[in-house]
Parts: sequence; structure tokens; C-alpha cells
Amino acid sequence: MSVSDTDAEPGTVYLVGSGPGDPDLLTVKAKRLLEAADVVLHDKLPGPEIIETLPEDRREDVGKRAGGERTPQSEINERLVELAREGNAVVRLKGGDSFVFGRGGEEAEYLAAHEVPFEVVPAVTSAIAAPAVAGIPVTHRDHASSVSFVTGHEDPTKEESAVDWDALAATGGTIVVLMGVGRLPDYTKALLEAGMAPETPVALVERGTWPGQQVATGTLETIVNARDEVGIDPPAVTVIGDVAGTRESVVEFLQNEYGTADEDEREG
Amino acid sequence: MSVSDTDAEPGTVYLVGSGPGDPDLLTVKAKRLLEAADVVLHDKLPGPEIIETLPEDRREDVGKRAGGERTPQSEINERLVELAREGNAVVRLKGGDSFVFGRGGEEAEYLAAHEVPFEVVPAVTSAIAAPAVAGIPVTHRDHASSVSFVTGHEDPTKEESAVDWDALAATGGTIVVLMGVGRLPDYTKALLEAGMAPETPVALVERGTWPGQQVATGTLETIVNARDEVGIDPPAVTVIGDVAGTRESVVEFLQNEYGTADEDEREG
Repeated sequence: MSVSDTDAEPGTVYLVGSGPGDPDLLTVKAKRLLEAADVVLHDKLPGPEIIETLPEDRREDVGKRAGGERTPQSEINERLVELAREGNAVVRLKGGDSFVFGRGGEEAEYLAAHEVPFEVVPAVTSAIAAPAVAGIPVTHRDHASSVSFVTGHEDPTKEESAVDWDALAATGGTIVVLMGVGRLPDYTKALLEAGMAPETPVALVERGTWPGQQVATGTLETIVNARDEVGIDPPAVTVIGDVAGTRESVVEFLQNEYGTADEDEREG
Repeated sequence: MSVSDTDAEPGTVYLVGSGPGDPDLLTVKAKRLLEAADVVLHDKLPGPEIIETLPEDRREDVGKRAGGERTPQSEINERLVELAREGNAVVRLKGGDSFVFGRGGEEAEYLAAHEVPFEVVPAVTSAIAAPAVAGIPVTHRDHASSVSFVTGHEDPTKEESAVDWDALAATGGTIVVLMGVGRLPDYTKALLEAGMAPETPVALVERGTWPGQQVATGTLETIVNARDEVGIDPPAVTVIGDVAGTRESVVEFLQNEYGTADEDEREG
């Protein structure tokens, strides 16, 4: 049995990534499952264009609860099991790819521990796609033989910070930071202290592939100013490394026009 | 103008990733462009299931030339420009994502330098998808706060090797090696010498999402034997880190059945 032969099975949970936000960047499989599922559990990160296509009576927003705080992961896990045991074909829809900082691994483990069959439907990750549509390849034969993805949620000044910025700097490869708008000053400082060149190109891509996509470019030294001048807000992806300079040489002929990026862009 | 509103434009080159190989993991956009393009330039990596759907009179295999050697990148670049200038809507189709070790960055620069309009169509990368469909999330809240992608083509014993295995080991995150079947003994040794624990879980996923998918699991010490026992051949993705152990706890309920993985799997 290949995935291609199956459709939404009752009692099964599908861990589906939405891709970066453009509905055209859903996979064929994800699109079909969203149409066939009995219920879709989602938060806000798949983006407005995808969420609006889901019928209201078949979707549950588990991103925020009435009070404004986030739904705990444990409640989402329990809800997935409950819905599957009721015989529903359940889609758990995450922004980007479920297995890249998306808690998909935890959900898979919980489902397996509760003997609920599940399928993983990989997706286009925003970590690669947001830079790409802005003209930035995360690897490049001339510039970067590795690329590392981290989240920017953590405080890099904390001793117990799990992200080792020194080691990331030492790889010599591209560094992509997800959810890293707020802590941009902290980790650019950490990377400079780790010995990265101040003139290392950096780009911020806000809401990559969404209608309001914005881009800010600069260097490790200037990107915080560029962020503030352009007015970059979350969600955004930060690309650090020589590849970020590629945008400048290709943007004139790049036809991916999602937002008003060119007008809003400021060089830092 | 959003990408969603456009179709294949004459004189434009579309840098399209095929995803890992399952045609269901093409994006909606890629599928439409493959149907609409005047000509598709591809090699073998998109996989048999996707390539077979392309009409023979609209595709060119630029992977190997008659003599058996690879078509030089410079010839592919020139051919893209030539076809676009003739007024064709051209798709340049790569396996996985064009901008992850796919030469997409070089092609974009060449096209821009020759004033050929182009669009980037991001895709599902095999680096994430092949582990995912084998039950392995490349990041996990409990195990890995970063993930790094590298290619295994290079000889890690060469002084000028661009990949810094010491730094990658020091990140503490997951390491994913693409095209790393042949040099597995070299880089597992390099990582052990860099101080990674011998019992670190490692998984190899051959032809992830293809009909003949195979998986081998083990540790930094045992994976070379496991590779040989299972008979893992290129193309394959190597996942190194605690996340590789997730497969064992979820595989019984994982419904992604692409190959004969379970029968062929050997614990190393």
C-alpha cells in the first residue's frame, strides 16, 4: 500500500504540514486530506489563505483558548486521540513542516503510545521556502556546504540555553533562525562574539509566501536597525550567511511577488 | 500578482523541486507547472514515479550524457537560457528542493545575469521527508533544538574539507547527511573522534517515499554494519542524533508504508 492509494481513513490521525502559507505550496496529499478529513485541528501558523478554505464546521482552532493563552500540548494530544477513537479521520495541521520545530514528534509518540494509527505528511518548511522566494538559497556551492536550523525563542544569554551559537558559528555554514524576530539583537551579538565577521550578510523574511511578505536585509551589525526600519514582525525567518547576499544579484529577475517586499525593503 | 494567479509564462524559467519522490508530495504549484510547461529539464533524482508522468516529447534528461558522465552545470545553465529565449515556459526540475544542495542558487544567478525572468517553487526536501516517513522527526523538544544538513560527498579526512564535523558535533543537534552512503564510515568516525557518544542513534533511509524505500538503524558504532546487512544503496539520507531513536517507539502505528522497510530492516 502506497500513500498514493489511500485516502482519509476513519480512526487515523494525519500529521500534516501546511507549508509556508501559499495554498499553492500545499502538497497534493495535504490538499486532498484537508478536503476529506472529518476534522482539522490547527493553529494560526498555516496562514489566513489556507485556514479560510477550511469549512468552519470541520475545524478546531487549538492555537489559543478563550482566555488568550496557548492550548497546552497535552490537551491537543488528548483531543487527537479522542477524535480518532470516535472514528474520525483527523488532520493535525501545522504551519510549515510538522517535524521541524512543530511538535510532530511528540504527537507521533503520544498517538503510538495510545495505539492510534497515524500517518506523517511532510511539507515545505518555511525555513527553506521563505528565504527561497526572496531569492536566497540556504546552501550554495560557493558559499555554504551546510545549513543549520534553530529556533530563536530561547534566550542566548541564559547559561542553560540549548542552542550553542559558538558551535553554529564554527560550522561555517548558513544559519536559519525560525521565530527569531524578538531575540535578533541577542543572537546576532552571540554570533559576533563567537567570531563571525560583522559584514556577514543577514536577511529577514516576514510571512514568507503570505500576501504581506516583507524582507529586510543587512549584516550581522546592521540587521537590527533594518528590522526596525522595515517594521518586521513575527512570524519571520532569519538567514545568516553569505547566501543572504544572493538576493541582491537576482531580485530584479525574480518573479515570486508575494508582498510589497521591494517597496518596503530597506538596506541596513 | 501572487504566484497563485500565474501559470507557466513564456520565456520564464521555473526552478521547481520535485519533493522526495512520491508524486503526492509534489506541491500543487509544481504539479500544475509540470503539466503546463513547454519543456522540463530533469535528472534522475525526482524518482521514477514523477519522471514517468512527464510526456517524452516535453522533457530533456540532463542528468547524464550519452557517454555516461554528468552534464556539466554550465551546459544546463546555457540550455535554460536558450530555451527561455526561444519563448518556452521552462521547468528546471530537481529532486527534493532546488535550493538545498540542488544548484538552484547558481542557476538563479546565471538566469538573472542573462536577464531571464525566473520563479522559485520551493519543495519538500528529502532531508526532512525521508526521515519523517520513517517515523523520525529531525527536531524534538526533548532531544534536539537544532538540525544541520550537510552533504556526504566530501572526504572528511581531507584537510580542505568544507564540512566541519567537529563543529557539527558540538552543536548538540541532529545532523542529517544527504548523499552519504559511501562515506558513512568516514564521517561516523569523524563524529566519534569529535566526541559524540558511540551509542548515538543513527538511521539510514534509502529512497525515502519511493516504492523501494528501505531503512537501517543502529548507532554511530554499528550503523556501517547495519548499512551493509540491509544493503542500503544511494540515494539515502542519514540521520544522526537521539531523534533517530524515535522510530522504534512509533513504527508499529505509523501508516506510511512506502517500501518493504519493516521486513528488510536490521538493527545494527
